[in-house]
Amino acid sequence: MGIEISGFAWVPEFAQGYVKDLRPRWALAEAGLNYEVRQLENGETDGAEYRRWQPFGQVPAYRDDEVELFESGAILLHIGRKSDVLRPRGAQETAQTEAWMFAAFNSVEPRVDNLVNPQIFYPDEDWVAGWRPHALRLLEFRLTSLTGWLEGRDWLVARFGVADIAMATVLRGLREEPVIDDFPVVASYLERCLERPAFAEALRKQRESFRPEAA
Amino acid sequence: MGIEISGFAWVPEFAQGYVKDLRPRWALAEAGLNYEVRQLENGETDGAEYRRWQPFGQVPAYRDDEVELFESGAILLHIGRKSDVLRPRGAQETAQTEAWMFAAFNSVEPRVDNLVNPQIFYPDEDWVAGWRPHALRLLEFRLTSLTGWLEGRDWLVARFGVADIAMATVLRGLREEPVIDDFPVVASYLERCLERPAFAEALRKQRESFRPEAA
Repeated sequence: MGIEISGFAWVPEFAQGYVKDLRPRWALAEAGLNYEVRQLENGETDGAEYRRWQPFGQVPAYRDDEVELFESGAILLHIGRKSDVLRPRGAQETAQTEAWMFAAFNSVEPRVDNLVNPQIFYPDEDWVAGWRPHALRLLEFRLTSLTGWLEGRDWLVARFGVADIAMATVLRGLREEPVIDDFPVVASYLERCLERPAFAEALRKQRESFRPEAA
Repeated sequence: MGIEISGFAWVPEFAQGYVKDLRPRWALAEAGLNYEVRQLENGETDGAEYRRWQPFGQVPAYRDDEVELFESGAILLHIGRKSDVLRPRGAQETAQTEAWMFAAFNSVEPRVDNLVNPQIFYPDEDWVAGWRPHALRLLEFRLTSLTGWLEGRDWLVARFGVADIAMATVLRGLREEPVIDDFPVVASYLERCLERPAFAEALRKQRESFRPEAA
């Protein structure tokens, strides 16, 4: 059967290139592994069959000949173990890779989402303006800490790996926010990640996958 | 050297029993592994030495004879692998355990925090009342999905494991929120988790660890 991931048949233009199946696409491109994408139509994410694969109805989900799982963090860890390119070397690199994966998805991403999402989803609500300074401040704490770690380092762990794919796709959510410019060490780390040919390949493949007739 | 985790020398009463070193304490109690706690004094979390261990200055961090890492999710995965009691059996259980760990910390915890934290940290601000209905709705989506998965199951994966420690400690953040009563399948799962003797042991040890003179 090979590798299958889930994605959407179509999303609005502002989300194209940012759907989270970009993460396994990028990791699989780094690893040189082929995959197929099951493109979900409207409403399919709520069906019982998809919920058995992805209980929250999100994308991506993943399966191969050995396992079936969901959550992009867990999928990245799994792909990382399958790949000679991405596999952490030894117990300490494995532990640090996992630490930075959870840091990306628990300590950083929620603070990015809290800054970015209210303006996208509730642009007309009164409370957004009052909320923003708090969201920004909590995010800045994290970007300051991340700067401290990244100074003098090319990658989060000893070599490029799935933790960098996790963190870069999280930080990329700040593309419209000037705050990233206040953290040049983080900004240049992000740029270094996004310069990888496998990122460009993943991005192109996701963008080309959307079918306007599924809108 | 054995196992060492970090915790706080003291926290305000409302946080006692809820500091996140409870997670490795619980897992280590399940596993029957001894550990020592390095209790951090005020300001120590900002020091360069601690930041090398925990780049964000949070607790817990963890080290043993083999590895040094941070983020409670990653620490739980590591302890899970060390323990005959907690270790997932086979590739599929491992994958599902990791999926549910990221689900707890990325898909559920941020929505719990967004409901609970503003009232704790910004009780007097205007925007909190406007924000709450959105935070509640986003959390309810997740609790509905979680209900769908937990129906007919005792634990998230085939047997009790670190994913349950992750999810239960996340859901426990809703203790003061009536929303949990609207999701009885989730509430009874949480209760089942918290009835474990290892949880009671971890809770007792954390509570007994605080030193008022460090306030």
